[in-house]
This record gives sequence, C-alpha cells and structure tokens, in this order.
Amino acid sequence: MLLPTNRRRFLKGAALAAGASQSRADEQPAPPDPTTTPGVPARAYGERSRFEKIVRIPSSQGTSSVTPLQDLAGIITPSSLHFERHHAGVPEIDPRRHRLMIHGMVDRPLILTMDELKRFPSVSRIYFMECSGNGFRERKTARTAQEAHGLASCAEWTGVPLGLLLREAGVQAGASWIVAEGSDAAKMTRSIPLEKATKDVLVAWGQNGEALRPEQGYPVRLFVPGWEGNISVKWLRRIKVVDQPYMTREETSKYTDLMPDGKARQFTFEMDPKSLITFPSGGQKLAGPGFYEISGLAWSGRGAIQRVEVSVDGGQIWQDAQLQTPVLPIAFTRFRFGWKWEGAEAVLQSRCTDEHGDVQPQLEDLEKVRGDHWSYHYNPIQSWKVAMDGSVLNVLT
Amino acid sequence: MLLPTNRRRFLKGAALAAGASQSRADEQPAPPDPTTTPGVPARAYGERSRFEKIVRIPSSQGTSSVTPLQDLAGIITPSSLHFERHHAGVPEIDPRRHRLMIHGMVDRPLILTMDELKRFPSVSRIYFMECSGNGFRERKTARTAQEAHGLASCAEWTGVPLGLLLREAGVQAGASWIVAEGSDAAKMTRSIPLEKATKDVLVAWGQNGEALRPEQGYPVRLFVPGWEGNISVKWLRRIKVVDQPYMTREETSKYTDLMPDGKARQFTFEMDPKSLITFPSGGQKLAGPGFYEISGLAWSGRGAIQRVEVSVDGGQIWQDAQLQTPVLPIAFTRFRFGWKWEGAEAVLQSRCTDEHGDVQPQLEDLEKVRGDHWSYHYNPIQSWKVAMDGSVLNVLT
Repeated sequence: MLLPTNRRRFLKGAALAAGASQSRADEQPAPPDPTTTPGVPARAYGERSRFEKIVRIPSSQGTSSVTPLQDLAGIITPSSLHFERHHAGVPEIDPRRHRLMIHGMVDRPLILTMDELKRFPSVSRIYFMECSGNGFRERKTARTAQEAHGLASCAEWTGVPLGLLLREAGVQAGASWIVAEGSDAAKMTRSIPLEKATKDVLVAWGQNGEALRPEQGYPVRLFVPGWEGNISVKWLRRIKVVDQPYMTREETSKYTDLMPDGKARQFTFEMDPKSLITFPSGGQKLAGPGFYEISGLAWSGRGAIQRVEVSVDGGQIWQDAQLQTPVLPIAFTRFRFGWKWEGAEAVLQSRCTDEHGDVQPQLEDLEKVRGDHWSYHYNPIQSWKVAMDGSVLNVLT
Repeated sequence: MLLPTNRRRFLKGAALAAGASQSRADEQPAPPDPTTTPGVPARAYGERSRFEKIVRIPSSQGTSSVTPLQDLAGIITPSSLHFERHHAGVPEIDPRRHRLMIHGMVDRPLILTMDELKRFPSVSRIYFMECSGNGFRERKTARTAQEAHGLASCAEWTGVPLGLLLREAGVQAGASWIVAEGSDAAKMTRSIPLEKATKDVLVAWGQNGEALRPEQGYPVRLFVPGWEGNISVKWLRRIKVVDQPYMTREETSKYTDLMPDGKARQFTFEMDPKSLITFPSGGQKLAGPGFYEISGLAWSGRGAIQRVEVSVDGGQIWQDAQLQTPVLPIAFTRFRFGWKWEGAEAVLQSRCTDEHGDVQPQLEDLEKVRGDHWSYHYNPIQSWKVAMDGSVLNVLT
C-alpha cells in the first residue's frame, strides 16, 4: 500500500548483497503468509533455519576445514563453523573415562577426571585461534576470504588456568618447559615454556558456553592465547614438566621456516598482527555503484588491536577504520569503514597495528626477509580487487 | 604408572561435579583407546559430542523453553540453548521473500528486502535478553536454576541501528513512538518511545556470528537492549512511526502489574538488576566438604554490573565476588567466589548492584511494594540451601 518511493536514496539501485547467492533454500517453500499459519513449538536443542547454508569447507584429506569468514557477523565464530585442524582425525572420547595427568618435575603428580578438573576455579575469555599455516599455501589460488584465511576463528573459551594446576602439583626447581600431549591417534605433542604456561594458558573445557566441540578437543584441550593453533594441544591427556623443549615432530620438521641464511626459524609461537576485509571480499559481487560499509576482522597474538587502516586505492591513501568496541586483547576485532564506490576498478586493503606498535606488513617486505622456503605465520596485507562489474577478486590469483 | 598421591590436597574427596549426572552417554561406547583409532574427518557444519546432553526445557504448551543456566560456562549462551518465548509458535520464513516496512509519520516510507537491510552499516553487541515473566510463576516450584530463571540468555547480536533506518525514512515532527509488528501468527505488536528507538535499538539479523535462529526471529527482529524481551519483536515486518503508544494487548492485558492501590504498572520496560548463583544451584549435589568455586551470573537492563556480593549464611555476612572481565553493559556478567564448605547446612545468596547504584532486592521488600497481583519483573535475591548431604535446594520450594 505504501510505495518505497525513496528507498534508493541510501541504497542506490537494487541491492543484492553479496553472499545472498549462498542462501539457496531447500526445495520445499515456506508458507506464503506466516501470520496465517501456526508456527512450530519450542525445541530442546535448536537448529538454524533450513534457508541458511553457510558451511566450513573441509580439505580434500579431511584434516582441516575453514571458517566462512566472509559470511560471519560480529566477532564470535559459532562453534559449528569454527575452523578445524587435526593430524589423525577427530577422536571420540567418553568424558567419564578421560584422564589428565600432570607429572614430571613436580612434587605431587596429578591424575584428574573431568569432574575433578572442573572443581578447580575457571575463567572465560574471548580469544581468537589461528593455525600458523593459515593463508600461505592458498595465497595465490584462494578465491574467497574463507579459502584465503579461514584457518582462524574466535570464541569464548572456559577453562582452569594451567598455572593453578601446576601450583597444585608443585613445580620443582630447575623446571623450565612443559610438554603437552593429546590423546588423538597423532598423539600431538608440543613443548611450551613454563613462563607462558603459568601466565595465561588455560586447560579449557568450554567453548561458547557449552562443552568443547569434538573437533576442538572434547572433552579438554590446552588453550595457549595468541600462539599458533597447533600448540593448543587438543584431547589433552598429559602435561609433563621438564627442563628443556622436547624437539617433537611438530616443532622441528613442521612448524618451522627455513630462512635464506640456511637456518630455520623455530618456536615461532606468537601469531603476528593480521587483518582482512571480509566485505567486500573475493567471490562476492557488488550490485552497482553506491554506498557500502567495508567490514573486516583484525587480530594479534601479542595483545589488543590498536588501529586498522583501510585503503580503497591499492595502498596509496590510508584512512582509519572504526573499531567495534569492546576491543579485546588476543581476540577478533571487527572494523568498519564507510565507502562510496563510484564504479571504477578499485583495490581494497586493510592494515592493522597492535598495541605494541607492530604493523601488518606488505607481502614483498615479508618475502625479502623470509625468502622462498617458508610457509608459517603468513600475515601480509590482503588485497581484493573490485572489478568494474562489481565482482571481487583476490589480487594474487 | 604415577600415582596421584596428593591429588586430594585441593579436591578433598572424590569429587563428582554437579551436573555430571546429566552427561549420560548413548549406548554405544567410545573406542577404549582413542590413540589407536583414526578419528573422523572434518565436517562442513559441526555438532556437539553425543556425550553432551544439556537441553532447554520446553514448556508443556511449547510456547517457551528455558536455558540450562546451571550447565553453561562464561557469558555467551550458545544459540541452540538460548531461551525461547513465542505466542503462536515459530514461523518459517523464507528470507528472500521477507520485507520490512517502515512507514507512518515519515517523509520517505521504506520497504526493505533482507539484502537491502544488510547494505546498511551494522553493529554487533553482546547483550542479555530476559523475558519479563522470568522467575515469578516458578519461584516456589523450581528445583533448578534453569526452571527458576531460564528465561534469560546472552548472545552477540548484530544489526542495523534503528536510528539509522529512521533517519533514512525521515521522521516527521510530532512523532514520539514507534509501533513494531511481527509476522508470526500472533502478529506480536509493541509500542516503543522514539527516544529509545533512536538510542540503541537494533534491527538485528545476526546472533553469535550466524543468522538469527528461527526461534529468535529469523530472518530479522528488533533488539531493544535492556528492556523486557517481549518488546524485542521477532520476525519483524513493520515499524510504524506514530505519536502515541498503541495500547496493544501485550502492553495492557499482559506485561502490566496490578499494584496494591488498584492502578497498574504499565510500560515497565527496563529489566532490573538481577543475579543468581548457578553453581552450586538447585538440583546439584556437592560431593563432600572442601573447596568449591561458587559461580553465577548477574545482569541489569540499565547498564553494567558494578558489584556482586555473595553470602553463604543466608544473608548475614556479604562478601564481594570477583567479576570476570570484560564487564559489558547490558550483558551477563560472570562472578566467582571461592568457598570452603565445612559440611554444615548453608544458604547461598548473591546480590548485585548496577552502575547506577540500583541493588537487587529481597523478596519481602519487593512484595511490600508490589502486593499480590504482579508477575513481571521478578528480580529478588535467589537463595539455595545446601543440605548436610550436599544436595542443593531452592529455599522457596
């Protein structure tokens, strides 16, 4: 009855937001008028609408899956869409039978049931998690933000501070590292300096309010804030207090980078400052010239994001984006930047700076330092090209 | 091989954390040793472990379901466990066909598709949501925190500020209220002062990173921060700008309280400061004397929680609990309080104060003011009795 005479003042043209093409409904149509049809009753455990279709993309071997960053809102990654990475599949563990052992250079070795672990005081924190292999291998083939950077997610994690458990066990003089071991078929094992272990590491059993998801280490994992994902050992069964790193497979033949001088970067724990624009991003299509809110995510393993700049001309002019509050340390930070697209080709970039002043680098600067034989800790500025027809492409492809 | 000789120094006794009894596994056992069995590959959309069984409890009529507050960690309620309340069931809506109309006293009426709505700038905020009927009817029969207070949850909501849409539409002089209408079979309709509508109300399409869940208003709802849940109209199809409240069913015969003087409290929008201990809480059982971390949730519709006090002796001595940071305005705030239970009967209580100095009242003080014919905005201090055998009971039952 009322005509939307002026609804295009802001929207300019029939807007088809990118990503909408992914919302293919099932065959069966919804009732034509929901006000004339009684709805369904309450349910014990809810599910998303059948019209919602965004998914993780599992790798061909099934050893990982990537988060659809371009389709998410806010900073929380829903647990069903949190990226996965595992080296021998996701084990099925009965929490009533699971035990966590803490031993080695301690006065009082512990073997804890899950119920005993949960008796200890716990904390909850919103933290990102990123695989240190995120982005490198896919940098030239990735078409979307998900394919390019989807080994990163953010959730509210709950667990017992490892420092509390270590005090309970009584760490002996001379101890300087811990070794953590998972109970998956890879027996994933990593060494962590004792200083970090007692600073902010969690023995985590909760994720976004619920129990950990199986692919996140159910019933218990290590959560090592800001450090490469692999070190947050999942399906955690053992922590040994030791006096040196154990030089496991995952810190020697893997998760190291051969540098131009022939030496390898090892124990590159912290995830560097990184950001990317998630809208508009590769694979999406702008409906036509007009106003768009550029939006994206930034994070740093070293603390809080202090600043995100956006360029719409391939890096010539940089302008500050707005950071969504609260800006939490070691968490995704959502940034937004209003942009009027005039219809010409444009290259969109974001660049973040963390609270320590560390700045996300250009790819060529990173390559100068790291040479040709690296693959971990890939954090350069991501460029998306908006073509004149509105389609968005990864510049490196 | 290593004996847990001293693991009881902290735990004192074989601890069976409360709630564990709900984790009944399915019939089929998990592999006896997960390290010898390859796990399952990555999946497109994850699910929780089959050993996890916590659920919402739907009401007998199916018009609501309550969040298992006693089983949640942190402050985020997973969307599958967010409470529901609907007056004619959950409609099924095809987002491609849904429209939002903004009309009435505006210069430029709008009819927006979901894609057009999402073109507008959006914000994400972590907010609690509480039904104003939460707790009253069940106060004497509830055995658990879920039964007593489960019509409250907290999530990260994403949407377009309504003020932005109203500026786009051009509100005319003399307008002072809006009326919001849902497209469920109840055509839920509520009036909201224009001042609030332009302050912080969201036209929300995202919940915990994903699209809204169907029972939360998919594809779009109003989100009115801090106000009684009913006013955050779900399945939103229409906003009319008007010059007076419309005195709908849900603000006259319902959602009002008859006071002792014969007048009714009406438009009691803001949710008052409230807190409850979720562990230990009704239905749980302590394994025996020893250390426990009391934990709970506090919130206020008026802003941030400033203080939570805990009493373990029925309100004689109050001590400050620790608030988990970040303490966000109009959001669940998790509090913790270390307690050594000596094994005697104890009555546990929590009392919160918000940033405006408003204090959660005692039930008798509330009854003095409100009389006998009220049922909304029930926020008194909740008392849980710990019996000598460790079982925890609602004192009012």
